[in-house]
Amino acid sequence: MNKQFDVVVVGGGPGGYVAAIRAAQLGLKTACIERESYADPKGEVRLGGTCLNVGCIPSKALLQSSELYDQANHAFVMHGIGVENVHVDVTTMVRRKDNIVNQLTAGIKSLFKKNKITLLSGHGRFVGHENDYWQVEVTSPAASEIVAAKNVIIATGSRPRHLEGVPVDNRIVCDNVGALSFDSVPQRLGVIGAGVIGLELGSVWKRLGADVTILEVLPDFLAVADPAVAKEAWKVFTQKQGLKIHLDVRIDKISASDKGVKVEYQIGDTSQTLECDRLIVSVGRVANTDGLGAEAVGLPIDDRGRVVVDEHCQTSLPGIWAVGDVVRGAMLAHKGMEEGVMVAELIAGQAGHVNYDAIPLVMYTHPEIAWVGKTEAELKKLGIEYRVGQMPFLANGRALGQGDTTGFVKMLADARTDRVLGVHIIGNNASELIAEAVVAMEFSASSEDIARICHAHPTLSEAMHEAALAVDKRSLHF
Amino acid sequence: MNKQFDVVVVGGGPGGYVAAIRAAQLGLKTACIERESYADPKGEVRLGGTCLNVGCIPSKALLQSSELYDQANHAFVMHGIGVENVHVDVTTMVRRKDNIVNQLTAGIKSLFKKNKITLLSGHGRFVGHENDYWQVEVTSPAASEIVAAKNVIIATGSRPRHLEGVPVDNRIVCDNVGALSFDSVPQRLGVIGAGVIGLELGSVWKRLGADVTILEVLPDFLAVADPAVAKEAWKVFTQKQGLKIHLDVRIDKISASDKGVKVEYQIGDTSQTLECDRLIVSVGRVANTDGLGAEAVGLPIDDRGRVVVDEHCQTSLPGIWAVGDVVRGAMLAHKGMEEGVMVAELIAGQAGHVNYDAIPLVMYTHPEIAWVGKTEAELKKLGIEYRVGQMPFLANGRALGQGDTTGFVKMLADARTDRVLGVHIIGNNASELIAEAVVAMEFSASSEDIARICHAHPTLSEAMHEAALAVDKRSLHF
Repeated sequence: MNKQFDVVVVGGGPGGYVAAIRAAQLGLKTACIERESYADPKGEVRLGGTCLNVGCIPSKALLQSSELYDQANHAFVMHGIGVENVHVDVTTMVRRKDNIVNQLTAGIKSLFKKNKITLLSGHGRFVGHENDYWQVEVTSPAASEIVAAKNVIIATGSRPRHLEGVPVDNRIVCDNVGALSFDSVPQRLGVIGAGVIGLELGSVWKRLGADVTILEVLPDFLAVADPAVAKEAWKVFTQKQGLKIHLDVRIDKISASDKGVKVEYQIGDTSQTLECDRLIVSVGRVANTDGLGAEAVGLPIDDRGRVVVDEHCQTSLPGIWAVGDVVRGAMLAHKGMEEGVMVAELIAGQAGHVNYDAIPLVMYTHPEIAWVGKTEAELKKLGIEYRVGQMPFLANGRALGQGDTTGFVKMLADARTDRVLGVHIIGNNASELIAEAVVAMEFSASSEDIARICHAHPTLSEAMHEAALAVDKRSLHF
Repeated sequence: MNKQFDVVVVGGGPGGYVAAIRAAQLGLKTACIERESYADPKGEVRLGGTCLNVGCIPSKALLQSSELYDQANHAFVMHGIGVENVHVDVTTMVRRKDNIVNQLTAGIKSLFKKNKITLLSGHGRFVGHENDYWQVEVTSPAASEIVAAKNVIIATGSRPRHLEGVPVDNRIVCDNVGALSFDSVPQRLGVIGAGVIGLELGSVWKRLGADVTILEVLPDFLAVADPAVAKEAWKVFTQKQGLKIHLDVRIDKISASDKGVKVEYQIGDTSQTLECDRLIVSVGRVANTDGLGAEAVGLPIDDRGRVVVDEHCQTSLPGIWAVGDVVRGAMLAHKGMEEGVMVAELIAGQAGHVNYDAIPLVMYTHPEIAWVGKTEAELKKLGIEYRVGQMPFLANGRALGQGDTTGFVKMLADARTDRVLGVHIIGNNASELIAEAVVAMEFSASSEDIARICHAHPTLSEAMHEAALAVDKRSLHF
């Protein structure tokens, strides 16, 4: 007889491993299938998915290291700190990053043990449905077995989109995987795509000394962000930090060799060429549904290759669910995790719910960018009347103390009800400051609520307080 | 005829200047009396009070600078960043701090102009009450005048408590004023008092190379903080950072000369001597009510020299109010500011209110310490049944990425209702992370509320999320 489970999760990334842990906590007999071993020295399967192994976590480690290097080169002097011969050993920097990843992936394995979750190594694929149990085949190079589950949670995630005819070798032409493990700082680095990943990775290597050029097909910079944030980010990245970003680009031809890459492109009618030593391709990500056996069970997949689900992450097949990057919505680890918890709780017969209107989005550039809720452009489009409050960090004592006053907090509130509809931050520590706004929005706070809540002095959070006061035109400190 | 105002604020510190700005915004004719010029090069009166001139703001500037110096010396190596000959120019460091203070005090002056607030330079003192107007004499070295006000807001703040027989020259024996302006790093620094100020300033000079010894009269370290936080802080400060802290000390004699200070003290029956080059006295602060003319109008002052007020900061005399350090409650700038806003709004006939249960407290040591609500010790004393959730930063991806995993978030929730009663953080960035907890507590959140709110990944804020999950014993990542 096959192994039987209450829940089998396909994919051990943030959506998947969290769903598995929560399901196991709720007393369900749970297994999780994972096929990727990434750079595991023993070739063992690794949990944590893209996020932990080749995404959020390693990029943040390198962003931190490169930021310190940048501070030593540029910020120390104003503090009266003298240093000489500042240099970077990329091997050590990358090894620190690898150690962090190793520690966290091992941590999830031990969480699996603690919660008695069966880890199945291999590729998972639907093969049928018998007696209320979904049959999932798990194939590894070594063996293949079929497991049966009452519920299957698809959490197969996404992979980087590559450009047609431009093979990624992750040495010269890289996606996120290679770009996190350069063995030295490239002199000239090209990046295709000025989205979150392109800007974060471009920033890392720029700070470490690379001459970075980013080519973006879209005509607007960071069109997904609030227009004021995008404008400020553009100014800081291009003018202050010297990232070369070209918009509205049409890529004609990319030719790579062992020695580097030549990108031929057009802006308007002008043909241009970018010669670089390495190229990062960061043009979006594609849901992982091929090889899933969707067709074997009749599971609907949308035209973008994603599993079709309702607001509770339920597919049209009873007992089959899907969470994270493989379904509609933002490709964010924390969105996937929340969906994982929701689905596990629904399977266990509890109420489960994700408030998609209160999911924060963060870019870990410097300054950081973070927001939750609607942008001003979205509100205009929706025809919702709103009031705006904005507070620059320039007038914030903590920001001055930290020597970093770039950016602002911008709050958007409904003109009639005063309910907070969106909060947009560009500035140091935006990633943490946004948490307050998310909590406030979950409680349907008005801007006046935030204006009346005591904020510790001196903190950057006071800029949130002042932005809320500014909605009502009664800023105290600006 | 005397100058007449709707509101005269006595004292231009955080409580006072904010009260003045809010009063002026509400259409009240407002003046603010300030006597201190601190280190103003032109000898002009300066707004911002202790906090801005010789307290929170300058200390945070030096804490930031010294933290960077510390990172260069200790953290860079693990990131693969090499630096040589790290050295510090204290003059530049202190000048940067002074520039920040200058910028912010000037900023408040321009806010006064913008809001059409009359700044009266001099010492303010009640001299009488005529025709519903309080008479306040403003005396400066140059002149003296009497102004009349329907409402007076006393915001005279506090001053450092000194030790009897130990004159503070702010060169060798210093309070907060001198300790923020050393011209060089003292080799051996003594500190009397292991409270917030002693620990913050001790940390600054320790990082810059001083051998720091702190003597504390009380037997318990940081008794005001949650016991778990105090325990962790003790471990980090004494074992990791090498601050020498002695508790339960009885000071016998302090003798200062141009060359240094000798502190004779006892611990139990053992007599000991501390020889140091400079000494910081940080043994609390005293409300500034002498010279206020309280007796001239019959204004009640309590036995600790504070103006007696009710929960709305109203004194027993109609039209006289008092806010900030000069009244009961924690001596915190943001508490004073909130009181200032409340009083201005009450005077203008609006509703005004301060929720004293949701005022955060922050210590800017490294790691930072921040909390809001009740400590575990307080809950035990009150006989309230509670549940505890705790999440160490050791298991937090962002903390690992930042290379700083000290500390934890601890949440206390009512055992029956699950309402959050207190949140205690020790760790990097605690000062900003606490904002989320304050907002949650203002909305009477349960721990489950926070557990169900999406937190961006990877952030330190996720530790708040996990602490909330831990209250219900369903941590996902620990």
